[in-house]
Order: sequence, then C-alpha cells, then structure tokens
Amino acid sequence: MERDDVFRRDCPARMVLDHVTGRWGVLVLTALREGDLRFSELRAKVEGVSEKMLSQTLRTLVRDGLVRRTVEPTVPPRVSYGLTPLGAGITEPLQALTGWIKSHAAEIIEAQSTYDASPS
Amino acid sequence: MERDDVFRRDCPARMVLDHVTGRWGVLVLTALREGDLRFSELRAKVEGVSEKMLSQTLRTLVRDGLVRRTVEPTVPPRVSYGLTPLGAGITEPLQALTGWIKSHAAEIIEAQSTYDASPS
Repeated sequence: MERDDVFRRDCPARMVLDHVTGRWGVLVLTALREGDLRFSELRAKVEGVSEKMLSQTLRTLVRDGLVRRTVEPTVPPRVSYGLTPLGAGITEPLQALTGWIKSHAAEIIEAQSTYDASPS
Repeated sequence: MERDDVFRRDCPARMVLDHVTGRWGVLVLTALREGDLRFSELRAKVEGVSEKMLSQTLRTLVRDGLVRRTVEPTVPPRVSYGLTPLGAGITEPLQALTGWIKSHAAEIIEAQSTYDASPS
C-alpha cells in the first residue's frame, strides 16, 4: 500500500495530514501540549471553535491514536482529553511550525498590506 | 498588537496558521518545494483539489507573501507559481510535519483499526 505520498488522495499519510492540519487539529493538539484538559476548557482555549467542530475534531484525533479520552468515575463523570505518546510526538513538528509562523507574522502582515495596496 | 497567540481568533499568527494549514495550504506549499509549477501542473499534483479551491488557496498564499505568481509575456501568457524566500522558509517545518506523518502512518492506521473494532 502507498503510505507516504501526501499528494495522493487515497494515501493514509494524506488523510492524517488532513486530520492534523484540518481547521482545528493543530490548535487542539497544541492546546493539549501543556497537559490534559476537559472539553469546556479546550473550548475556551481554542477560540472560535464550535461545540460540534470540537467534538468532531476530538473524535478524529482519538481514532487516529493521537489523543486519549479519559472518563473518571465521579458523579457526574469527569471527561478529559490528553495527548497519547504518539500525539505528543506530533506536537514537536507542529510546535516548529507555529514557532516559525509566530516569528514571521510581521513579515506576512507586511506582505498582505503591500498586496492590498497594489492595483489588481 | 497581539501577534503570537495562535489560540486567539484575532491574532495574525492564527490567521496565517489557518491559511497555511487550511485544507490545501500544506500541499500547495510542499508541491512548490521542488520548483515552479503552472496552475494545471499544480492541480494534477495535488490530487482532489478543485480549480476553485486551488485558485483561492494560491491567492491567499500570494497575498501572504509565501508564493509568487509570474506571468511570462508569451502568447498565450504563461503563468507559473513558485515559493518566495519566505515561502521556502515555511516549507522547512512543513516538511518536518509531513515527514513525521509519513513515518508514523502505520501506527496511526493501526490505532484506527483498533478504534473501529472496539465497542462504542
């Protein structure tokens, strides 16, 4: 099986890339880097995510083995989410990516201003 | 201005992260790593992208200063896309990310099978 061609639609690596980078994947994985969080805490941290999108993102990441869901047998049950060892591994390159973006944000904003000011 | 909190909806870094990781950003930037490509070549390389989505992705990346659009004065004009120095810079962490995913694809596929086989 072709596993490593991210350009191919039917390639597993492409599918994982879609999950991880899809709209909210990066932010959820990065948010969990600091430690486990409950659903409501995650939702507060990742601004702009809807309840539905967050549930869906978490389900996908749990299925991929990147995030684990823990239910503590309290009343009411306390559900929290955390990174698996595999998930902790992927936060390294994600951190490098967000780090790059943070340190180049000013240049990008400048490029946008130049673009917006130029005649189209 | 708050420029570096990717969790904040109004933060420039978050916006760039959305552009770069949004559905097609990673694939387009990675595809251009090997050299300039014309629109049709890019579309053939990045499987599954529609003409509309590719145009939109390229416009966003050009505006961000990550991709440049070159029009050669031939008849008909030849339009090609390539990475700017800034865009070439971001492909480094993106490469690390896709590399990680490629080398862990088998583990992720296994996690998915386990998840799908477990009673819900």
